[in-house]
Amino acid sequence: MAVIYAIGVGPGDPELLTRKAERIISQCPVICAPTGAADAASYALSIVEHLLDRSRQEVISRVFPMMKKGPELEAAWDEVAQEVIERIDKGEDVAFITIGDPCLYSTFLYIYRIIRAKRADITVEIIPGISSINASAAAAGISLGIAGERIAILPATYENHELRNTLQEFDTVVLMKVSRAFDRVYGLLVELGLESSSVFIRRVGSPQQEVVFDLSTLVGRELDYLSMLIVKG
Amino acid sequence: MAVIYAIGVGPGDPELLTRKAERIISQCPVICAPTGAADAASYALSIVEHLLDRSRQEVISRVFPMMKKGPELEAAWDEVAQEVIERIDKGEDVAFITIGDPCLYSTFLYIYRIIRAKRADITVEIIPGISSINASAAAAGISLGIAGERIAILPATYENHELRNTLQEFDTVVLMKVSRAFDRVYGLLVELGLESSSVFIRRVGSPQQEVVFDLSTLVGRELDYLSMLIVKG
Repeated sequence: MAVIYAIGVGPGDPELLTRKAERIISQCPVICAPTGAADAASYALSIVEHLLDRSRQEVISRVFPMMKKGPELEAAWDEVAQEVIERIDKGEDVAFITIGDPCLYSTFLYIYRIIRAKRADITVEIIPGISSINASAAAAGISLGIAGERIAILPATYENHELRNTLQEFDTVVLMKVSRAFDRVYGLLVELGLESSSVFIRRVGSPQQEVVFDLSTLVGRELDYLSMLIVKG
Repeated sequence: MAVIYAIGVGPGDPELLTRKAERIISQCPVICAPTGAADAASYALSIVEHLLDRSRQEVISRVFPMMKKGPELEAAWDEVAQEVIERIDKGEDVAFITIGDPCLYSTFLYIYRIIRAKRADITVEIIPGISSINASAAAAGISLGIAGERIAILPATYENHELRNTLQEFDTVVLMKVSRAFDRVYGLLVELGLESSSVFIRRVGSPQQEVVFDLSTLVGRELDYLSMLIVKG
């Protein structure tokens, strides 16, 4: 029976693909790539484009309305899951590609849940990828954790009173999706005396990559969706 | 001036090396590989052995007494840092290879701190690797975090009263170095009703890989040093 591969393609630099990801992406007859908006090229797809041969590979580039919620989003996921299942039933392996790592805040996890519920008999093999967290720490040249240290990872969209405890208790705190919450979170970091031991990273592993240690320069700026803060306690 | 590359070689499977890691490891005249005991082959070195040509590459395979603490350990790190600096001063690039990811609980971070203190002028480039955390979640087929979920990563060696809070507050808790603490931690998971939503993974990405969902089968067993628990709240 055909297999679904969920493949992490890393943060953006095609050189950060693994050999295993390259091999499976080159071999699969069907490539499924999520994209955040109808008119945007899929970022995951752009990372692996050099491996694809569209004369023998089908590319399903479905729109995932990332900003939408509720039934409309659920229906979109369900439709993709159904398309993937149809290819599997025809005997075709499907490579579902995802930015970073498939197990860490990826779109794949929604599809995975649906496919598991619909068809527990289908084999899903997950190929890990370089996550944007590891790539960001590398780009900034900082440790995520050493020896007995504790690390917390959470979206920056939590309220300040929820973030405060975590920032005080953990040695390293990674705040994902920080773009819209930045000014508020920066205020909290200043309050806790953590602003000078923090680093902001956007679009890691892409030509637009930016690593900013002086967070005060970012206040009031329009920031990228693919950005995070790493805070050292 | 020559450069120090800190390169994550992933959890064990040579196919989980990145292209970038492969390229730099093949090119560097000096490879520095840590090993946990004098008589043990370096695990990181075994992952990249197929890339090496010892007729043109020097391999510094220094002993890191992982179980030791204090001045003796500090002296061992200092000696390796000095050897690396000597090669850089001779104009030779050094690839410091490390299992998993260099920024996440790696031996490299100790060396990095020493080299930064001794010689801030040397360029250190960090190449991220697949961490054992991402690889373990992939092997177990579970999510580390989705949407607004919060993730905590910490050594299992913390006392139960410290672990309890984290296990109750976070959606996913990754407990590293669980081998010696397993029986105690298992008792805590049972107390919190979390034992059936947890998974144990040892030696991920190696031929000895084992994924265990029924934790009760592990009680009283001698467990591997390279093992972790992923607990879903």
